[in-house]
Amino acid sequence: MKQVKVGLIGWGTIGVGVSRILLERPDLIEEKVGVPIRLVRIADLDISTPRGIQVDRSMLTTDAEVVLNDPEIDVVIELIGGIEPAKSFILKAIRGGKHVVTANKALLAQHASELFSEAYKAGVNLYFEGSVGGGIPIIKSLREGLLANRIRSIYGIINGTANYILTKMTEEGSDFQEALSEAQRNGYAEADPTYDVEGYDAAHKITILSSLAYGGKVKLDDVYVEGITKVTPKDIQYAGELGYVIKLLAISKFHDGRAEVRVHPTLLPQKSMLASVRGVFNGIYVVGDAVGATMFYGQGAGRMPTASAVTADIVDIARRIISKAPPYIPLCWRPDSPKIDVMDIEECESRYYVRYIVVDRAGVLAQISGILGRHNISIASVIQKESYDEESVYLVMMTHKASERAMRQAMEEIDRLDVVRAKSMVIRVEMEE
Amino acid sequence: MKQVKVGLIGWGTIGVGVSRILLERPDLIEEKVGVPIRLVRIADLDISTPRGIQVDRSMLTTDAEVVLNDPEIDVVIELIGGIEPAKSFILKAIRGGKHVVTANKALLAQHASELFSEAYKAGVNLYFEGSVGGGIPIIKSLREGLLANRIRSIYGIINGTANYILTKMTEEGSDFQEALSEAQRNGYAEADPTYDVEGYDAAHKITILSSLAYGGKVKLDDVYVEGITKVTPKDIQYAGELGYVIKLLAISKFHDGRAEVRVHPTLLPQKSMLASVRGVFNGIYVVGDAVGATMFYGQGAGRMPTASAVTADIVDIARRIISKAPPYIPLCWRPDSPKIDVMDIEECESRYYVRYIVVDRAGVLAQISGILGRHNISIASVIQKESYDEESVYLVMMTHKASERAMRQAMEEIDRLDVVRAKSMVIRVEMEE
Repeated sequence: MKQVKVGLIGWGTIGVGVSRILLERPDLIEEKVGVPIRLVRIADLDISTPRGIQVDRSMLTTDAEVVLNDPEIDVVIELIGGIEPAKSFILKAIRGGKHVVTANKALLAQHASELFSEAYKAGVNLYFEGSVGGGIPIIKSLREGLLANRIRSIYGIINGTANYILTKMTEEGSDFQEALSEAQRNGYAEADPTYDVEGYDAAHKITILSSLAYGGKVKLDDVYVEGITKVTPKDIQYAGELGYVIKLLAISKFHDGRAEVRVHPTLLPQKSMLASVRGVFNGIYVVGDAVGATMFYGQGAGRMPTASAVTADIVDIARRIISKAPPYIPLCWRPDSPKIDVMDIEECESRYYVRYIVVDRAGVLAQISGILGRHNISIASVIQKESYDEESVYLVMMTHKASERAMRQAMEEIDRLDVVRAKSMVIRVEMEE
Repeated sequence: MKQVKVGLIGWGTIGVGVSRILLERPDLIEEKVGVPIRLVRIADLDISTPRGIQVDRSMLTTDAEVVLNDPEIDVVIELIGGIEPAKSFILKAIRGGKHVVTANKALLAQHASELFSEAYKAGVNLYFEGSVGGGIPIIKSLREGLLANRIRSIYGIINGTANYILTKMTEEGSDFQEALSEAQRNGYAEADPTYDVEGYDAAHKITILSSLAYGGKVKLDDVYVEGITKVTPKDIQYAGELGYVIKLLAISKFHDGRAEVRVHPTLLPQKSMLASVRGVFNGIYVVGDAVGATMFYGQGAGRMPTASAVTADIVDIARRIISKAPPYIPLCWRPDSPKIDVMDIEECESRYYVRYIVVDRAGVLAQISGILGRHNISIASVIQKESYDEESVYLVMMTHKASERAMRQAMEEIDRLDVVRAKSMVIRVEMEE
């Protein structure tokens, strides 16, 4: 093997970053691999818009098949995103004996088992460091660096858009819409931000991380998802007064042979490491039974950070090709790997922050606490906050640990009370010592 | 290859952790490697003290040579620490064709080139994840995860003892001696704490990280080192009032073809990620030109965290043995790799915090600022703090960026002034946006 030849499908933001690294610093990579890694083809529907990078025009094609059918190409990089045609391209590459690198979290969260079972049959590698946490080497750390551990839990700030919005709301007091608009103006949120702000992106990523962590298949459909659109500046303020920040957290825990996997707004202690993760940055907090608490921090998206991860994958594969190592299929997605049993959200337990708008009248607290008591939910603290209008006030409550099922039932009753003026806000609390 | 056989030299804190992982969870490891990894021999001068772990007594020996001479052993784990006899043991293992895993930072910081040139000749691997950052996979991240990057800088809280002491001083207002005593009572500091509190341990680690990051040999002797013994609670308090924390920071930067590598107490903005790294935890902040800022956090020492790292190394080597991959010698320690030119501390630049004790009299500030001005050091802010005694006060100053040489010359003059009552405290400031 005198060189490793790479073909790229998808020359968008990240694809340009990858092509830049491969074309502009071949020496840096060659000295680390031992042989050159040569980018020989780039496929994209648009090959005319200038990318600000010098490429030989003959490398470019609008037809992905040209890359997939090129017998010289050893590694195909898929960076078009989405399910189709990305999935078909990857399957074709695999079946043609080509190794694949992708950053496609949606595809992996839903079809990893199928893709890896094909990779296993074909004897090729499928790498995906860029799919979670941008340039942070979190996949490698879970697969290799922490492999001596049974992973107990993962707490991830893994969506930069949501974290940017919540950071703006926290630091500038803006409401969700204002912060979203600013994120859109700065290129940190899509025109349709649903995928990010409703938590779906984080759900894809925590599905991948959980599968790797627990060595079995976690189903995306089993992941509970709740976005940040209902979080108000008042909640952020009150949480702050209590010593907490609000983050969109992807949470994954393994205990008693079962997993909890959920994505939702979460109160975290201001002193926790994850509370310091601001703006578009990501932080992934991993607890292993040997290593204890660890955290991995960095830019979770963007051209060059993600290109850094994709390039690391290419090099890993190149080294495996050179040493003729067998393909490295993650345990969790081998054909015979178990399905991980994920708890229904109603079976989970947590502490809760509850913010009510209630009529300012004697007996209201007694009514509310009576209902909570009947559902075995015990109150840790209550604070009456400022007026909502002439006759109502904000009331903020922290509960002790309670079951989600009990909490839901209690809140349904409470929100039906005449003295409760609007739907109450319930936010789970995590990561307290 | 039906199994990989491992021999352990050094059955102390970390050695016991490693033996526990290998003996108590062979299934976890085997399913990840494909073949069993078998710990077959343990050598330690003391094999009689119970370790709280079930081992076959016939595995134990007081003679390291028994491990080194056993033709069945593929991988030797050296966990005795220190230079000799660790170095001789490792060299003998290497020359005998055995792969080696070590967590010996002192040895690597001083003799890595020699060890790796032998490993290169013998065609064996020498892995060392446990040498820096305990269980944090920082070595793997630098070698593999971030390899597409030119590393610009590393800022590390990499000595848990010093960080524990400074955290205590910050959070409880205790002085250095009190905090050190508490660290010793809790097992976080040695009876002779010099190696940790004077910064030598951090210097060893940043030497290793810098070599890996810049792809050339960094000499330990070129690293500037200053410990934390002179930091006072007053300095911590004043830094806090200005929005900073004081940490023992290992700093490494690469610019204009040269490196700065230094260890000293440092003011960091309270909002910086590293400021959140409390107690015995470590945090390593790495800036790469593609990935941007990243941080790796976790327990920097201790039995099971470090054993987690050592085990990951054993598995990496086992996988290489199975796939017959060539040894993976870090670029920086290959025989032909360049020496990195490290700047003298006097050539470095930074902002400075200076705390004076001066006579409370008109004209004092004019004298001090006059001297600084003549040395081209410009003052960003000055605050007069409370009284030191009846006639003197604390004075705190932040400078703009200045050269260390100028600063030293100026401070020598200033400390000779009659109005200056005690040696002034100078602390460098880093990581401001």
